[in-house]
Amino acid sequence: MSDADFDILGIGNAIVDVLARSDEAFLSRHDMHKGGMALIDTDQAEAIYAAMPPGIESSGGSVANSCAVASALGAKVAFIGRVAEDTLGQAFRHDITRAGVHFPTAPSTGGLPTARCLILVTPDGQRTMNTYLGACVSLGPDDVDAALVGRAKVTYLEGYLFDPPEAQRAFHRAAEAAHAAGRQVALSLSDAFCVHRHRAAFLELIRNGVDILFANEAEITALYEVNTVEEALAKVAGDVTLAAVTLSEQGSTIVQGAERVRITPAPARVVDTTGAGDAYAAGFLAAYTRGRPLSVCGRLGSLAAAEVIGHFGARPQSDFSRMADAAEG
Amino acid sequence: MSDADFDILGIGNAIVDVLARSDEAFLSRHDMHKGGMALIDTDQAEAIYAAMPPGIESSGGSVANSCAVASALGAKVAFIGRVAEDTLGQAFRHDITRAGVHFPTAPSTGGLPTARCLILVTPDGQRTMNTYLGACVSLGPDDVDAALVGRAKVTYLEGYLFDPPEAQRAFHRAAEAAHAAGRQVALSLSDAFCVHRHRAAFLELIRNGVDILFANEAEITALYEVNTVEEALAKVAGDVTLAAVTLSEQGSTIVQGAERVRITPAPARVVDTTGAGDAYAAGFLAAYTRGRPLSVCGRLGSLAAAEVIGHFGARPQSDFSRMADAAEG
Repeated sequence: MSDADFDILGIGNAIVDVLARSDEAFLSRHDMHKGGMALIDTDQAEAIYAAMPPGIESSGGSVANSCAVASALGAKVAFIGRVAEDTLGQAFRHDITRAGVHFPTAPSTGGLPTARCLILVTPDGQRTMNTYLGACVSLGPDDVDAALVGRAKVTYLEGYLFDPPEAQRAFHRAAEAAHAAGRQVALSLSDAFCVHRHRAAFLELIRNGVDILFANEAEITALYEVNTVEEALAKVAGDVTLAAVTLSEQGSTIVQGAERVRITPAPARVVDTTGAGDAYAAGFLAAYTRGRPLSVCGRLGSLAAAEVIGHFGARPQSDFSRMADAAEG
Repeated sequence: MSDADFDILGIGNAIVDVLARSDEAFLSRHDMHKGGMALIDTDQAEAIYAAMPPGIESSGGSVANSCAVASALGAKVAFIGRVAEDTLGQAFRHDITRAGVHFPTAPSTGGLPTARCLILVTPDGQRTMNTYLGACVSLGPDDVDAALVGRAKVTYLEGYLFDPPEAQRAFHRAAEAAHAAGRQVALSLSDAFCVHRHRAAFLELIRNGVDILFANEAEITALYEVNTVEEALAKVAGDVTLAAVTLSEQGSTIVQGAERVRITPAPARVVDTTGAGDAYAAGFLAAYTRGRPLSVCGRLGSLAAAEVIGHFGARPQSDFSRMADAAEG
């Protein structure tokens, strides 16, 4: 890979998470699909917030989380995403900037407030997310600086960004700019319901503009409308150069053409799975952009995911500096 | 103890914490006294926030933390404290209300924003706090509803409230109302630097209006200007009915006249000591207001503190419902 100013440029929703513990009954009472991500409007956000247990606020957003983790792992990272000029937007900017991530996107003013995701964590550690997109909907193609895209080895796109309507155009612009500069494009499918909502658009982008795909079992089978991961892996091998499919406590499988690399999961105390997939992608891309073999990419992904699973919230809470060495082992 | 609508009425600063991990060098560079609480103004708050690592936001405030923990332990709790009508104030209100705590204080409007405490947690788990008091300074005697005080078995006052000038008058009003209704008054010394700042006022309140005193080693020796905890314990026994002095990893000592009860600490994985003393007081008062013996009060304090020490942030993150039974052990 040629020299670049950044290892990873992430493009995603800029969100502040509100995380609280709840029981399963709370999910049922509020018609939430456990483990999923639902989009909510202002009224729903107010109603759920009023009802949900006390929590903490932590910067979130899937690809933004990946950017923070990759930076903690020593990667050079930039992020494009839209917050408003408000208290949560300031917190998001502070957190990602102080995580060492270059964040050039100007805040919106006078429009919708900064996005928030109301996250219920059940006793099994599973997270159920309710996202109010707010200012994220004003991210569009003009926010993608083609020159910045060209300066990053990998541009990493968030599947959730298929929800705000203007962002799909931003994706295509980013993918074109990356390939024009000889760079690569990665995409996370983000969520099975999101894949269902935008399946055709996902497939079109994947087949024409994506080199590296991240997905979990539910997402990849939803994408190809198949019943087993094996069938999905066979299909994805023809669509992208490289795919990494996470399989919860079964670890992950990396697919490159006919090659399969199985990664066993790192031991983890499950407190809160929020951000596990984001951290896996971060570890993978941090190793990949340093030219490490696929087995090391997968192991660094697993180690990063294990740390994030061990506490409340999706951003790093401990020292990641020795993790890259551990992944070589 | 006679019937009451509330077991505990807390009066304290209403603060949202911003917690981040930092190294010791960060504390030195910013002239922070490790383990202490410093008051900061708007400019300092902006400068420290801009420099500090990424973090999380969690409702805080010493006595407010105690109220949330005591409620999680099954006590009936109310809290008086002042937030502004802003995003952090809404989060504080949500968190304490959803923790089951009655919170009648109206927010201030048009004045200073909701208080925040910038907390640096070093690798040893010790927390160093920088408090911007904001809206807390507008809490005064008019905010203390004497009828509400009369409905609570124990009114619990926060030593940090000696800093905002009007709050001392609120304390005296609360202590008088409690005693007029045949109730008890508890006080936490909060912080050794705070004791140094207001030593005479503390002693005057303690000798004339406090039944139960909470302090740690540094605070109680600062109060009596003595060199050893033993000397301080001898003195405090003459000033209050009951004192509970926490001794970090040595546990705690409860003093009631000539009686001493030694409490061994509960086993804890130290992640972040923020709120340890608050949780101890909460466990103690939750058992005390149920008429439990002093040994059980101390053990419930230790168990609650151990949970809070085990994660980032001072509010409960796990199920406290079986803790009271464990303390009977």
